[in-house]
Amino acid sequence: MKVGIVGLGLIGASIALSLKDKVDLVVGLDNDLEVLRIAKERKIIAYGGTDCQSVPSDVDIVILALYPKAIIKFIQDNKKYWNKNQLIIDVAGLKNEIVTTIQKELPGVEFLGTHPMAGREISGIKGAREELFLGSNFIITPTEKNTQESIAKVKELALLLGVKNIYEMTPVQHDQLIAYTSHLPHLMALALVSAYEEGSEQIVGRSFLDAVRVADINENLWTELFLANKKYVVTELDKLIAELVDFKKLIAEDNVLELTEKIREIKIIKERIKQ
Amino acid sequence: MKVGIVGLGLIGASIALSLKDKVDLVVGLDNDLEVLRIAKERKIIAYGGTDCQSVPSDVDIVILALYPKAIIKFIQDNKKYWNKNQLIIDVAGLKNEIVTTIQKELPGVEFLGTHPMAGREISGIKGAREELFLGSNFIITPTEKNTQESIAKVKELALLLGVKNIYEMTPVQHDQLIAYTSHLPHLMALALVSAYEEGSEQIVGRSFLDAVRVADINENLWTELFLANKKYVVTELDKLIAELVDFKKLIAEDNVLELTEKIREIKIIKERIKQ
Repeated sequence: MKVGIVGLGLIGASIALSLKDKVDLVVGLDNDLEVLRIAKERKIIAYGGTDCQSVPSDVDIVILALYPKAIIKFIQDNKKYWNKNQLIIDVAGLKNEIVTTIQKELPGVEFLGTHPMAGREISGIKGAREELFLGSNFIITPTEKNTQESIAKVKELALLLGVKNIYEMTPVQHDQLIAYTSHLPHLMALALVSAYEEGSEQIVGRSFLDAVRVADINENLWTELFLANKKYVVTELDKLIAELVDFKKLIAEDNVLELTEKIREIKIIKERIKQ
Repeated sequence: MKVGIVGLGLIGASIALSLKDKVDLVVGLDNDLEVLRIAKERKIIAYGGTDCQSVPSDVDIVILALYPKAIIKFIQDNKKYWNKNQLIIDVAGLKNEIVTTIQKELPGVEFLGTHPMAGREISGIKGAREELFLGSNFIITPTEKNTQESIAKVKELALLLGVKNIYEMTPVQHDQLIAYTSHLPHLMALALVSAYEEGSEQIVGRSFLDAVRVADINENLWTELFLANKKYVVTELDKLIAELVDFKKLIAEDNVLELTEKIREIKIIKERIKQ
């Protein structure tokens, strides 16, 4: 298996590190020469360059590890390089627009959307780690345009990364659920830090530190993600705000019974979410 | 140093475990005979019973590890047992009402409020761990009624527990800040689980798991804490809700510039909170 990775940021470079001793060849593209220099020096890729001409045309799998909008642009700008023997996948945190647009743009080439559920606070190639995906969830969003063979190949790739679970869902289901499980926790962390009280760093316990951990996000990537998934993000924010307003009401009116009962019910739901 | 611990739940029993080989004697009270049996069997305490008659009157420090309301009641019900040679402290998560009431009720006995910032999801004596306080923050809320000698003694006790930092603040400051750093993160975790989306357990990453971790709380204790600190909790909830509404507005109106700038500023605040 020969793998080409486009974009050597945190995710792309971590995939390269994880695959390089398990597949025949890992080559990489990045438009930042300094990133390419680091990638070669740290032997993250065998070789690479800034454009599609720098990599061999017989790459089996092309992995697009760019921001969502950049993925669509890259596909469009490089149409002449794609061929029918390749499988192209992306690893972006949103799926519907990317999958729909690219499957329409490239009817002769197979494209499959994926989302490895892993990340860390250090962005870019300097945050790359071979074990980033160990034990994580890996989502694939095949459509009727994908073959069983390609789906099997992507699952094989995910297992090489060391993921724990592989889940299949539609691109729309993915974007709806991700608004709840990822965009909302990140917005909560941001909102909590933004409500900062002077002197409070003296009195933090683990609950606070965990709650603010993911406030350290790349502002450009996440602004793009929040806006691109606006419809579902706004719906989830409304639900969360309604829950907080309900808690506020129960607390303000000293409603011991309903508050106790609500917390008890929430613990039952949480049992189901546990992994 | 002879230590008496009232209430052998998670915090009380963990303090006992942590101190038993470092002080002369650790005795314990609990109104649950099964808890007392476990405490004796696991050698968490040297001996104990269900009431003040079961423990020696020359205990130097009495640690009240009960729910906030129960602390005040216990002090009132057992007035005849307290003497001027003792230092009484509590470890509850709220300080102003307890400190004010008890210092008024027991003018001849020294009482000092503390709050060890540690906990875990398993409540009761079965969750007790010797290392629960290692590396944690320990808050003390002395008033003009406390002597320097007692403050020094409590700090010494905190260091025996292995805490990293000891901070002094007024009981009111404590309750105001704790609404932000503890009550709010717990309410956020509860609200997020309560907004549960069917199927979402397939698509959770670390951000979600961290965000819901503390939703597993003891509903009776936390209902009491939220209500007893109502004034500050409601203020903090209002601030958080306003932040979420602001994010919703920026996202709904596709405001890339302000959203990016807001996230950037939040990262700067977060740097200050880091421990």
